[in-house]
Formats: sequence, structure tokens, C-alpha cells
Amino acid sequence: MKIVLLQTGKTTDKHIAEVVDLYAGRIKKYSVFDIVTLPDLKNTRNMSVQEQKMKEGKKIIQSVSVDDYVILLDERGKELRTLEFSGWIEKIFMLPKKRIAFVIGGPWGFSDEVYGRADFRMSLSKMTFPHQLVRLLFLEQLYRVFTIIKGEPYHHE
Amino acid sequence: MKIVLLQTGKTTDKHIAEVVDLYAGRIKKYSVFDIVTLPDLKNTRNMSVQEQKMKEGKKIIQSVSVDDYVILLDERGKELRTLEFSGWIEKIFMLPKKRIAFVIGGPWGFSDEVYGRADFRMSLSKMTFPHQLVRLLFLEQLYRVFTIIKGEPYHHE
Repeated sequence: MKIVLLQTGKTTDKHIAEVVDLYAGRIKKYSVFDIVTLPDLKNTRNMSVQEQKMKEGKKIIQSVSVDDYVILLDERGKELRTLEFSGWIEKIFMLPKKRIAFVIGGPWGFSDEVYGRADFRMSLSKMTFPHQLVRLLFLEQLYRVFTIIKGEPYHHE
Repeated sequence: MKIVLLQTGKTTDKHIAEVVDLYAGRIKKYSVFDIVTLPDLKNTRNMSVQEQKMKEGKKIIQSVSVDDYVILLDERGKELRTLEFSGWIEKIFMLPKKRIAFVIGGPWGFSDEVYGRADFRMSLSKMTFPHQLVRLLFLEQLYRVFTIIKGEPYHHE
């Protein structure tokens, strides 16, 4: 199954971008994996938060297909321990889906339309982190999960 | 009150080290803040995990004083939301202590001696992250907390 990370806006911090690339490269040794960056909205200064979320949401919806299993990375989602996440990913791999699409939204969260489309909402932490850092955390964790599935000695409890 | 981050071993990833420095610099605008790096143990190849934890633990204990409020960053500690963390830090500031010492241990966790000395154990996530990344997360969160306490517009729920 293919894995895609959908994210809004480029990773502008060049140091974080380097570490993101490092983990993305590692993940590609285990799975077909792409990062799809949706362009930032333009002229947001004249838009309400609600309007920004709605417009961003439409772009997210357009970027996923009916064959995708859509997982939102969302502060209010379910928190999993690393081994739970790994066991759960293995179950998703068994589903008759073409892709797993992980979605990291902008700083305002997701629109109702996106929440409606999601198959699952997961949280990396109860704490709020900048979304650029969330990308890094997520990629490290996805890499970690593959090493667990393959029985490699990266993770220990 | 002074704040210190006690950590074991240098941050060897130079990109993560750059972002760590960035947040440490930001924190220093709000508080006296130091990062104290305990040297890595030597000849660990012939040591059991238990022995490594014990030796590392002794160095941690030697680095804190009776006047310190000691907080361990520990996967099994209490998870706080960002605003809870911020409210709680404000309470710690009221205590008759000289320093708050946050401690990030090595990959094997802490010795019983360190757990015994700790005033509080907090967790940034249910998931396991590399301790170098934990440093980065922690510093971003500490910076975020100061912006909340000062009423600055960095954080939004």
C-alpha cells in the first residue's frame, strides 16, 4: 500500500526540512511514500479563520480519493503508544485501500468537511506544537513503526 | 527562578542542534536558562542496561541541589495540555525553590534513585521519540509557555 503525507505549506525552517528529508528517505526504504504539499492560501489577511479552514479543507478533499484511508493528525485525536500505532498500521495495510493518506493541517485545524471525510483522527501529543515540528515528529514515528514491523533494533520500550 | 535543562550526551544531529539553539535563545529572553549536558558514559559495551541507568542516575543526582524542583521528562509521566503546562509552571514559579531542573535521560530511562528524587514526572507524548528530538520538543514547549504567560500571540488553541 502507498503512503502519502498531505501537508499545507512548505517546511520553511531549513534545518527542520533537512531532518524531515532524512526521515522521508529512510521511510522510502520500506514503502512507497510521498509528501504532497498543498500551497498556502493567498490573501488570508482578508479571510476569517473559518473561511481559511474551509478553503484549505476543499484542497485537502480534492487531494484524496475514495480509495484512500484518510488519517488526520489532530490534537484532539486518539493518542496511541508507539507499539499500538505500529500494530494498528499493520491492520490498515490489510484493508482493501490503495493508499493511506496522513494529513497535517495548518495552524487552525481542519474544516468540518475534512473531519467528515476522515477515517481516523490521531494525535501525537496532548501538547500543541508548530505544524512544521509535527511533520518531523510524524515522520520519525512512521520510520520507527517500519523498523518495529521489520523487527529491526531501532525502537526499545 | 532559574531554569535548567539537564541532558545526557550532546545533540549530535547538527540540524536538530541548530533548532535547539534557536529555541534556547528565545527562552533566554524570558528567563535565566541553561542547558547542562552530562557527558555520555564511557565503555558502555560491557555494562548492563541496569548498570548504565544507575551510573547515569548518579551523575544526574550530583547535578541537582536540594533547592531544585526536579521534573523528569519521562514517557510514563503525566501528560499535560499546553495550557495546563503553562498554568502549572506559573505555580512552580511561586515555590520557594532556586531552580526548576528539567531532566531528559538517555534511551533507557531513569534509575530508581532518580525517580526517587524527582518532584514531578511529565510526558510530552505517549509515543517514544529519540531523546534528541525530545529536547527540541521540550524547548519549543517551554518557549510557548513563556509566550502564553506573557500574553503574546504565538500560541492559539
